[in-house]
Amino acid sequence: MKPINEFYVRKIMREKLNEIIFGTTTRAGRNFDLILLLLILISVLIVMFESVQVWRSEYPRFFYFAEWGFTIFFTIEYLVRIAVSPNPLKYIKSTWGIIDLLAILPTYLTPFISGYTSLRAIRALRLLRVFRILKLNRFTSEAQALFHSLRASYYKIMVFFFFVLMIMILTGTMMYVIEGGEHGFDSIPASIYWAIVTTTTVGYGDITPATELGKILSSVMMITGYVIIAVPTGLITVGMARYKDDGKKDNVCDNCGHDNPFGSIYCNQCGEEVLS
Amino acid sequence: MKPINEFYVRKIMREKLNEIIFGTTTRAGRNFDLILLLLILISVLIVMFESVQVWRSEYPRFFYFAEWGFTIFFTIEYLVRIAVSPNPLKYIKSTWGIIDLLAILPTYLTPFISGYTSLRAIRALRLLRVFRILKLNRFTSEAQALFHSLRASYYKIMVFFFFVLMIMILTGTMMYVIEGGEHGFDSIPASIYWAIVTTTTVGYGDITPATELGKILSSVMMITGYVIIAVPTGLITVGMARYKDDGKKDNVCDNCGHDNPFGSIYCNQCGEEVLS
Amino acid sequence: MKPINEFYVRKIMREKLNEIIFGTTTRAGRNFDLILLLLILISVLIVMFESVQVWRSEYPRFFYFAEWGFTIFFTIEYLVRIAVSPNPLKYIKSTWGIIDLLAILPTYLTPFISGYTSLRAIRALRLLRVFRILKLNRFTSEAQALFHSLRASYYKIMVFFFFVLMIMILTGTMMYVIEGGEHGFDSIPASIYWAIVTTTTVGYGDITPATELGKILSSVMMITGYVIIAVPTGLITVGMARYKDDGKKDNVCDNCGHDNPFGSIYCNQCGEEVLS
Amino acid sequence: MKPINEFYVRKIMREKLNEIIFGTTTRAGRNFDLILLLLILISVLIVMFESVQVWRSEYPRFFYFAEWGFTIFFTIEYLVRIAVSPNPLKYIKSTWGIIDLLAILPTYLTPFISGYTSLRAIRALRLLRVFRILKLNRFTSEAQALFHSLRASYYKIMVFFFFVLMIMILTGTMMYVIEGGEHGFDSIPASIYWAIVTTTTVGYGDITPATELGKILSSVMMITGYVIIAVPTGLITVGMARYKDDGKKDNVCDNCGHDNPFGSIYCNQCGEEVLS
Repeated sequence: MKPINEFYVRKIMREKLNEIIFGTTTRAGRNFDLILLLLILISVLIVMFESVQVWRSEYPRFFYFAEWGFTIFFTIEYLVRIAVSPNPLKYIKSTWGIIDLLAILPTYLTPFISGYTSLRAIRALRLLRVFRILKLNRFTSEAQALFHSLRASYYKIMVFFFFVLMIMILTGTMMYVIEGGEHGFDSIPASIYWAIVTTTTVGYGDITPATELGKILSSVMMITGYVIIAVPTGLITVGMARYKDDGKKDNVCDNCGHDNPFGSIYCNQCGEEVLS
Repeated sequence: MKPINEFYVRKIMREKLNEIIFGTTTRAGRNFDLILLLLILISVLIVMFESVQVWRSEYPRFFYFAEWGFTIFFTIEYLVRIAVSPNPLKYIKSTWGIIDLLAILPTYLTPFISGYTSLRAIRALRLLRVFRILKLNRFTSEAQALFHSLRASYYKIMVFFFFVLMIMILTGTMMYVIEGGEHGFDSIPASIYWAIVTTTTVGYGDITPATELGKILSSVMMITGYVIIAVPTGLITVGMARYKDDGKKDNVCDNCGHDNPFGSIYCNQCGEEVLS
Repeated sequence: MKPINEFYVRKIMREKLNEIIFGTTTRAGRNFDLILLLLILISVLIVMFESVQVWRSEYPRFFYFAEWGFTIFFTIEYLVRIAVSPNPLKYIKSTWGIIDLLAILPTYLTPFISGYTSLRAIRALRLLRVFRILKLNRFTSEAQALFHSLRASYYKIMVFFFFVLMIMILTGTMMYVIEGGEHGFDSIPASIYWAIVTTTTVGYGDITPATELGKILSSVMMITGYVIIAVPTGLITVGMARYKDDGKKDNVCDNCGHDNPFGSIYCNQCGEEVLS
Repeated sequence: MKPINEFYVRKIMREKLNEIIFGTTTRAGRNFDLILLLLILISVLIVMFESVQVWRSEYPRFFYFAEWGFTIFFTIEYLVRIAVSPNPLKYIKSTWGIIDLLAILPTYLTPFISGYTSLRAIRALRLLRVFRILKLNRFTSEAQALFHSLRASYYKIMVFFFFVLMIMILTGTMMYVIEGGEHGFDSIPASIYWAIVTTTTVGYGDITPATELGKILSSVMMITGYVIIAVPTGLITVGMARYKDDGKKDNVCDNCGHDNPFGSIYCNQCGEEVLS
């Protein structure tokens, strides 16, 4: 009976591990996710600090060992995920599977490339794994509410952006003509970059109008941008206010058709019981 | 019967072409508009890239042929539009007709002018033709909703701007006096330009106060501008919230046609019961 | 009967002139105000252009005569206002009377002062006379609606500003300590100026943190300011939405006490006529 | 009977003093708080001005005596607070007690440290004592309303910030890779600092993208940030609008105490008629 027993133990072990590693509903699953999250954040912080010249040259050994330590841990985690998954291929091909692989791959490739290259910085993209937190409970519901309320105004915001982009391109071109290709307005794309920096009120000041007419046009643009910036805010605010209203759909009164607010038990127009 | 037949065929062809070129409701009409849109965007992109010194000198032949190719295509399209239109003169004189002409004219004039002049950049204004997209269905309704909701707060925003402009001119003048015509505050118009850059929170930093008093006045101005910027946002948000309420057509009175607010049981204009 | 008649004619003339100059309800009164407005704007524009060094030295005669022309016209207008007013002293002491006097005084004082002094720029303050437009009809009602809606949130905005100012002073001081009085953070007032420039998202870039810790603190501050900037917007938006609601007070139904929306003739809850 | 009498007088005096110093409801208590507030503000202003090099070296004696004067006054106030408090230890250990101590401590430590050190600037933190104003009546209720309305959207804003921070870190890293560690993007932390400065639309301009790709990515980021900045505004506005709705107590059901939404005729929890 030993082989059967062994097989049985293995199956239970795999299921248990699967629950811990992939699950989010059990206590163990949640704890595993939180610890993993912490390790990812620490490893990303180390990548960040390694990018600072001074620290890189001062503690080369620390960064070397820390990086390999984390990579080996994440590799083991990745392999266990494959082993434990009921459908390993599906996991490997999934978005999360690819992100998990990308989080460890750069370190294995660095020995073949010299210097502190961009490849090394790319390791910071393992931060994407942090979004796994979205699977955790309370976080999800709040994030969903946020996204749903934005989805309502999605199309309107797109139309708005189409206009804003067209205006930015047109004003950018006009500024290029006005400033005569000088004072940083060297080309139309550069002028459009300036228009974006200005209309979004970022205003670096790396390119600023130097001619009288240029200053007048930018002034008009800024004051217009002043109102324009209010449009997405209005759209999103109304969308959010609406979302909560629309969320009530289950409270429409069967008797008088009144759309009662969320949580209603009796219709506030006719007093009928609302079946929710 | 041949001439009659030919005339008949021509009429049908013209009507068919008219439907494709000017129409937006048929499948062919929509596809033509989308392809045209794409060609306009590509031709504008080429104008943009041509304005970049490096690319202009590296691929002069590419830009030369691309530009003439697009211009000839748009010229043919312009002529077909005239031929096909039931009232050619009306089309030529219409805003769209003028924009269509302006989109091809600069290229024909360039041979007479040397260098990469502003005339060439002006070709980018053919981007205006893109707004023809507004005739497409879904886009229109969303854009209309957006504009209608803004129209409600139009007059209030104008009054608000009058105040803001007056305040900008007055603070600009005060800063000119305070900074004594130095540190970039060379004239009152320059100081007003600074006031606009500051109040709209763009803040280039090309002109900044240097005196103590100037810094105090700008601080007061920034904090005030902080609240001021909230006013158009409030106006537009409330305007949008209102507009959508009106869009809820379920409360239109059958008796007098009045659009009652959400939750009405009796029409507030004629007292009839509103069937919602 | 001559003296009596003359007295009578004078009285009528004075009343007529009073109506034209001070009134805003008659056609003549409105036209006078609009022409005056235009003249004020032109005279302010001339003061502005005179402040530009190049123009001042190129057209000295134009500016000289234009300025005296406007000043003499405004002086006559001022004297007529006094003559025509039923209570001259009251007008002279009123805010508008003082503004009207200040609009002409600087020009009379300039001969005694040499160079293009600040006194000359102060003439631009005659722009304040433009606010007389507030007496015009449509403008007033919109401006009143705007102000009333802001008044509701006035006290809350003040409380909010108290907090923001305290936070600005505290972060400014902290930055002064962190940056060690260098990199533009030369004193606590300078650091507070920086904090205001940063929190309001103006961001000139004339003072920027140079130390690591300074950059971290400013980052935290910017992200916080990101949310903080939303508070006055929220307050004002809600205030405006409320104002319109409160503006309806005249539409409360006598029968059921329901607060009907503006413009209601019949209560939308019980069908009773609303006495508005 | 003398000792008893003395004890009795002392007790009354202590209670009276306690009421004045700690209380906010009596006239004397409110006046004491307001005077204290003024003294704190003046002493903070003096610390600020002392930090200005010019003034420090010009009026060293004034700053020396003013500082010691205020410190001695605040020390006496601190000791009286301990003496008068019914539970001195509790007061000393409380947040206010610690802030009160920190407000006087730095001055006593300065003699042991030379120069105008950061320790001296820290005295400005006595500004924290100003928040004692929160205990005053009208101020409290407005501040509470403000905080309560923000609390509703607190968790959503946190979720939003998590996303924004992740996006800032990821774009910062990408910019570091794109700009190749040059043009101010020297390290990942520096690039993240740039991302925060840009997304919050502060835009100092101390670090700006120099490569084509960098400019394109920043443009995308700015336009995205344009919408992102609208999210907290929307959350807070909706939160505030909700909060006030709840403040409308006129729709509370007499039967079950449920707070019904505006316009309710029947309680939506128990079906009773709501008398409004």
